[in-house]
Order: sequence, then structure tokens, then C-alpha cells
Amino acid sequence: MKINGKHYRTIWVHQDDPSVIQAIDQRFLPHEVIIEDLKDVDAIAKAIKEMHIRGAGLIGTTAGYGMYLAALHAPRHSEEAFMSALVHAGEMLKATRPTAVNLEWAVNRCLEAIKAEKGIENKIAAARRTADAIADEDAAFCRRIGEHGLPIIEEISRRKKGEPVNILTHCNAGWLAFVDYGTATAPIYAAHEKGIKVHVYVDETRPLNQGGQLTAFELGQNGVPHTIITDNAGGHLMQHGMVDMVIVGCDRATRTGDVANKIGTYLKALAAHANGIPFYVALPSSSIDWKIRDGIREIPIETRSENEVKYIRGRTKDGKIESVLITPANSPAANYAFDVTPNHLITALITERGVCPATEEGIAGLFGHGNND
Amino acid sequence: MKINGKHYRTIWVHQDDPSVIQAIDQRFLPHEVIIEDLKDVDAIAKAIKEMHIRGAGLIGTTAGYGMYLAALHAPRHSEEAFMSALVHAGEMLKATRPTAVNLEWAVNRCLEAIKAEKGIENKIAAARRTADAIADEDAAFCRRIGEHGLPIIEEISRRKKGEPVNILTHCNAGWLAFVDYGTATAPIYAAHEKGIKVHVYVDETRPLNQGGQLTAFELGQNGVPHTIITDNAGGHLMQHGMVDMVIVGCDRATRTGDVANKIGTYLKALAAHANGIPFYVALPSSSIDWKIRDGIREIPIETRSENEVKYIRGRTKDGKIESVLITPANSPAANYAFDVTPNHLITALITERGVCPATEEGIAGLFGHGNND
Repeated sequence: MKINGKHYRTIWVHQDDPSVIQAIDQRFLPHEVIIEDLKDVDAIAKAIKEMHIRGAGLIGTTAGYGMYLAALHAPRHSEEAFMSALVHAGEMLKATRPTAVNLEWAVNRCLEAIKAEKGIENKIAAARRTADAIADEDAAFCRRIGEHGLPIIEEISRRKKGEPVNILTHCNAGWLAFVDYGTATAPIYAAHEKGIKVHVYVDETRPLNQGGQLTAFELGQNGVPHTIITDNAGGHLMQHGMVDMVIVGCDRATRTGDVANKIGTYLKALAAHANGIPFYVALPSSSIDWKIRDGIREIPIETRSENEVKYIRGRTKDGKIESVLITPANSPAANYAFDVTPNHLITALITERGVCPATEEGIAGLFGHGNND
Repeated sequence: MKINGKHYRTIWVHQDDPSVIQAIDQRFLPHEVIIEDLKDVDAIAKAIKEMHIRGAGLIGTTAGYGMYLAALHAPRHSEEAFMSALVHAGEMLKATRPTAVNLEWAVNRCLEAIKAEKGIENKIAAARRTADAIADEDAAFCRRIGEHGLPIIEEISRRKKGEPVNILTHCNAGWLAFVDYGTATAPIYAAHEKGIKVHVYVDETRPLNQGGQLTAFELGQNGVPHTIITDNAGGHLMQHGMVDMVIVGCDRATRTGDVANKIGTYLKALAAHANGIPFYVALPSSSIDWKIRDGIREIPIETRSENEVKYIRGRTKDGKIESVLITPANSPAANYAFDVTPNHLITALITERGVCPATEEGIAGLFGHGNND
């Protein structure tokens, strides 16, 4: 998608130096567009853990490039030492963000591709090829999610006789959370490109404000009308008929259609359900954890530093990016990063293979029973 | 209640100069405790509108003192000119915050008391007397709300065999929103004083963070264990059995028990309902608008400046209080200040006369059918 009129992906191999991965350091958005050079797997792990990059698909893709950089710098005196370094790198990467299942999936996929090759040069080539494939597939899957979600927006637009379709979204499941297009945003971008009038209510999404900072930024850069709201506002809007549909992303789904997504998603699902508003979750199948059925009991919920709640980063009058304390200094805070929306609150899942009910049968109908059966 | 060990009310007449009203300027909490001198009704109106003071009871009480200052400075050459200035002052005060019904109630009560007296000096004395009475009643009613709410917490404490009772609250319906004790906090303070273990989850309450800034501050200053959470987190906590009860305040209730409170309250009520957690609203009867029955259709919802969403105030590393921009500069934002929780989501109302169901019959059982029948 576009920033200042120029097309970007969120992550790519440096044009002149294939040992360097470049990514948009999202901590400075929307105020500054900063490109970070990532030169080894430790830098990749730090970028994931400290959220220079974030979002289900982008975490997975970045981990893929992490495995590639790990392969580039692993010991070459024996295949055993090489593979041991790669397994270690994979474990380190998996530990950075416990909720995002794409991370585990991408690391395992790279490891398998590397194992399958003979000879260290071939293994390194396989790592690069797999990381690139994960990135390309991520973009392709998001594009297809857009194509499958588009008719849902078109139908509402027809029903409203061309009046803007009001779509509420939470957090950033936009192109900045993936490699391109995004998941929740893909149908929105597809509709906007087709000339269908849409308007997006963007939950700011505390504590890290990925909605107010990233979703608003990318919608603005791509010309999509939008309004930022506090996370508290969605219920009121739905109660008053101001929201036609909700689309959110997903950090991990169970095979039964429960969905872990950014903290607060569950509250919006409850409000949509109470007010008869359709609630969609857009996700690539790489976000499905085939091993689990009960999202509320089985998906580990990452807890992060209380300082993400107590401090907030923004731009001062003087144009500096600064963190300010917004609570009493000695009050404790808790910071649960995700919550789980049970499948009965979800109207449907929008995937790269089509739209299906958020049920085990619905998911199996599109994907069979997954890789981990 | 206490700040740095010293007892305060939120507003009072200057000890040495009865023509000056003093109030805590809450915009600087929790970082600085600043006492503001208010010398005329314009200063009072500004303090209400720009939220130097806020909260249902305190808005009403402040408006009462506004009428007193208006009376002090009104023209004295004729009773007609005097009364005309007072009516005008009342209209100006009522326009400052459209949702808070206590404001209208306090202004009308002062006006009636002033009208009932003969002679300008007597009218001024009546204004002062009425404003003082509103303040004293506010504190007394809050204390009684605490007494009536206490058994609810005691019962949960007994059931949990003395383990801490986890109470979630939204916004600030604490003593800082009233003259003393608060409404939602009054039963909590009463339980804490009685040695019952309580722990409060404090919704930060965007956009103005009255929870993270004011509720956390006053609970901390009065020794009540608490944890600040984002507004997004409550659903997750309730889903996982980490909340025993919810208590919130109220800016306006209908005679049927619908409740307008800070934006986001409705989402917590939905989550409490979905998870079988009792949801209480604490309010003095001055917050009941006897003229209306349907809260969602009939309570006007104040919309405030988008800048309250786009900027946030906090303390920088250097100790300065500064506002920082937290969204793209050119993204629009919407700022609905309140939402309405329908009565069927409310377990009970806790009032100065006792606890009652959030129904017309329940309210009438305690209060008859109100003043405006």
C-alpha cells in the first residue's frame, strides 16, 4: 500500500545488500516514517518483542526473515552445528510473542525447508526462498481476503442505496500488520478501489494505540474516509445504528472458530451481537491453531509491561516524540494484550479461501482438518 | 477524603473571603494538586465547561456556588434586574454540560430559593444557604450510598471467605466527582474502612482518563488497593472470573432505570451480563430525570472536541505537564462523552435511600414518582 504516494511493503530484503532486512519501524508512526535495517536474528527478535513491527502476518514474515538471517550467520563448520544454531534461533523467535500463532508456524516452516536441503549453501538458499515465499503468500492471501470480503460490503452498500457503509475496526489488522493489504482492511481497500463509499470507525486501541496511530495513518495515506474513536465509543455507535458491520483481524483462531485478537475485541463483539450488527473476523489460515478447540481456556494471553498503560508516546508541540506519564506514578497497572471472542459472537470468518461460519464444520469445509491433525 | 493525609472536600467557600469559591483544579491531577480561586459565575461556568471540575455531584454543587456568586455580583438597583441576571446566569450554567441532570436540578433549586425570599440581601443569603445545602446534602447522600452498598461487598467477601473482593469501576464516580466519598466509591471506602479486603480494577476511561488519573489517585491517597487497566481489558477479566462485581456512577438516570454514564459504561454492562457478574449503579436521586423513560432515545449525549481524543496530557520526563498528539494530525476523531446502559443490564441501583431494582417500580418504591410528575 502507499505512504506519501509511494508503494511499500512492511518488510523487504535490502535492494543492494541481501544480508540486510529492511522494515518500517512502526513505533514512530504516524509521526515519522523510519526504515530500520535488521542485520541479524537478535535484531529481528528485538524488533518483534519491542514491537518495531507487529501484527499477525508481519510477525510471521519477520520471523521467517529472522530464520534467514540466522542461517546466514550460523556456524558453517558442520551441518550439525548449523542446524543447532537454527533450532536455537527458532526457539528464541517463538518466545518473543506468545499469542501470535503465525510466529510458530513461520519458524517451523523455515526449519523444515532448511532441514530438507543438503549442504549449508543450499540450506541458506532454502531459508531465503521460504522467507520470501511466506512474505509473498502473506500478501497474496490478504489480497484474496479482500476479494472474498468485498461482496459483503457491496451488499450493505446496495441495501443502503450507495450511502457510505460504516465499518468499525479494532486495532490494526491493516497492511501494516501484514506485508500488504492487511486482513480486516483488505475488503475495505477493495471496496474503496471499486468506488464503493465506505467510512471506517477506527478504535484507537489502547494501550499501544495501533488503531489511532497505524490504522488511521494507513487509511489516510490510501484515501479511505475514517474517524478515530476511543475504544469506549463503539457500543454507543452500534446502539444508535451508526455502524453497519465490524471487521477485525485475528492473532490466533482455534479450529472451532474462537478468535484471539487485540484486547477489547471481545467487548465490540458483545456490542455487535446485542445490537444485531454483523461481526466478521478476517484471517489467513496461518492464524488457525489446529491443535486447540477452546480459545478461552487454551490460548495463552500475553501480558506486557505496565508501562505501556502508564505512559503514552506522542508528538509534543515542539515536534519531539516523547513519552508522558498519564497515571499516578505509584499506581500499578495490568496489561493484558489480547482477549478471546467466542465463536458464537462471530458472524463469519473471511479467509483466503472464502467466507465460512466460525465453527469447526465451517473451517473444515474450507481447509479440511489442518496440518496438525 | 484525604490528599497527602489531609482531609479535603472538592469545593468550598474560601475560609477568609466568602466571595471566593475554592476548588481542586482536577486537570492537573494526579501530577499536581492545584487549588483554583473562582470569583464570579463566568469563572464557574468555565471551570465546569473546561472540566477543571467534573462529575455529576460536583457539577451540580459547583453550579449552586455559581448561582451564589451570580447573586453576589448581580445588579442591586431593582429586584427585577437582579432576578433577570440570576435567570440569565442559570441558563448559561445549564448550557455548559448537557448530559448532567444535576446541573439543571441545582440551578433550579437555587433559583427557587432566591425567588422565595424578599429583598436582595435575603436573596443573596438564600443563594449561599442553598449552595451550602446542596454541597452538604451531596456529601451526606454519598455517605448513605456507601452505607447501603456496603452489605453487597460484605456478602461477596463472606462468600469468598475473606479473599479480596475484586470490583471493577469505570471513570471517576469517586469523591472527586462529588463533594466527598463519591457514589461508586462510597461502598468501597466504607468496606475498606471496615477492614474488608477489596481490590479495584480501575478503567483508565479514555479520552480524558478520569479513571487512570482521578480514581487511581484518590484510591491510592486513601490506601485502597487498585490496578489500572485499559478500557479494553474488562471483558477479558470478567471472562476469566477476575471481577466479582462492577460499580459505576451515573450522570443521568431515567425514571425507568436506564443510566447515562461515561462513554464505555455500556460495554462493561454487556460484558458483566454475558459473564453473570453483578453490575451496580450508584447514584443520588438528584441524578434521576423524572421527565423521561427511554434513556437511549431521550438522554442528550454531549459531544466534545475531537482534540480530547487526538491529544493526551501527561507528565514528561522533565516533570512538565504537556499535551502530546497521538494520532495522525489530519485524521478526524469523534468524541461522544456518554453512553446509555439500558436498565435490563443493571443488577440494582444504590441510592441514598437504599438499593432498588433498576425499574420504574423499583425507583418509585424508594422515591415515589419524583418532583416533575
